[in-house]
Amino acid sequence: MKVLTIDSATMVAGVSIVDENRLIGELTVNYQKTHSEKLLTAVDHLLQDVGLGINDMDAFGVVSGPGSFTGLRIGMATAKGFAQALNKPMVTISTLESLAHNLNHATGLVCPILDAQRNQVYSAIYRGVGDGHLEALCPEQAIGIEKLVELLQGYGEQKTYLVGDGIARFAEQISDALAQTVVATHQHAINRAGSAGVLAYRRFLQGKTCRYDQATLTYLRPSYAEEKHHEL
Amino acid sequence: MKVLTIDSATMVAGVSIVDENRLIGELTVNYQKTHSEKLLTAVDHLLQDVGLGINDMDAFGVVSGPGSFTGLRIGMATAKGFAQALNKPMVTISTLESLAHNLNHATGLVCPILDAQRNQVYSAIYRGVGDGHLEALCPEQAIGIEKLVELLQGYGEQKTYLVGDGIARFAEQISDALAQTVVATHQHAINRAGSAGVLAYRRFLQGKTCRYDQATLTYLRPSYAEEKHHEL
Repeated sequence: MKVLTIDSATMVAGVSIVDENRLIGELTVNYQKTHSEKLLTAVDHLLQDVGLGINDMDAFGVVSGPGSFTGLRIGMATAKGFAQALNKPMVTISTLESLAHNLNHATGLVCPILDAQRNQVYSAIYRGVGDGHLEALCPEQAIGIEKLVELLQGYGEQKTYLVGDGIARFAEQISDALAQTVVATHQHAINRAGSAGVLAYRRFLQGKTCRYDQATLTYLRPSYAEEKHHEL
Repeated sequence: MKVLTIDSATMVAGVSIVDENRLIGELTVNYQKTHSEKLLTAVDHLLQDVGLGINDMDAFGVVSGPGSFTGLRIGMATAKGFAQALNKPMVTISTLESLAHNLNHATGLVCPILDAQRNQVYSAIYRGVGDGHLEALCPEQAIGIEKLVELLQGYGEQKTYLVGDGIARFAEQISDALAQTVVATHQHAINRAGSAGVLAYRRFLQGKTCRYDQATLTYLRPSYAEEKHHEL
């Protein structure tokens, strides 16, 4: 059984194919082009490279937020298109959970941070004991850095791992406030469709799938345009 | 500055592009096709997807062994071709060091194992303290599982992480003999050109480069044909 997973929740476009035994293939594109230019070509290239067709897939995973509103919608629309056309189930995976699983062998707190603009990050906090599994300690939220630091301090763990595109802007501020922080090295720092794909495959086996018309995005916060609209 | 790194040391074909700030792109192909079919297409696809040309690269990394004799030679020939044609330096990266850096945030021993046939693995042992760096504890070698287990036990670490294509055949035997082993989850279990690329970029900055005609492969052991020849 094979699951193809799409991730365009952040600036990174990614696609992976996973089966029960392995990561069959993964493509990560993190430069210049926009999602609408990148995503379908990436899917096409990966399928060609591994020698499989879209018909060989048994389910479609999609990274469903939080993240870039446009990116999320492109990813979801693409995955829904595949699932509807081929009558296959879908699996949705949180952007933050996927990102944290780049460091699922770390021991301590794993804190994915995505720049949410307006001085907030999309974040969640996980605890790892080094065995490949992570425990979610709090709900995913759009949060200011000071509040996030308070939350992190509350868990009393020695070490905090930071991962995600919020590193560039916020890692220093968080590191200054905590005893010991580790910033993920480049190969682990950005969203990987491989991490999302391994989670999607696990969920597919557990039957945690949905029909294409039931899959939804997680925004965590209304868009700026929506907020402005409500203020009127 | 950008470094393109090629990895065809094992059954996996991979290519990555790394600059000072990020993993620009990565493609991993781990299915069916042979390296001669996979590698150049993968390079071409990744360059297209990130919107860069081979001329934009400042150096070429190559995973230089140990591993599959044919795979290594194809990877090295390809990287040398790029470096010679464009008059750019090369960086060589150990297959085992690259593989271990999939788990460079683990705390404990990190032990990459590649199936070397004839009841041996290519292996090395690293110690991680969870900060993204690994310390090499012993030379790389072609070694039997019993001897590897003895070596691992000698370091007295609580936890041993196993990574690499030798997992399928040997993880159980190693796990039975050690107190606590963790097998890398699928997204971290195979060679990643992203991990090799981050190491290659670091070495490129340190000036640890060579000319295309100086780059060499590391076999650790003569090929079966060579051994047979010497016995004659």
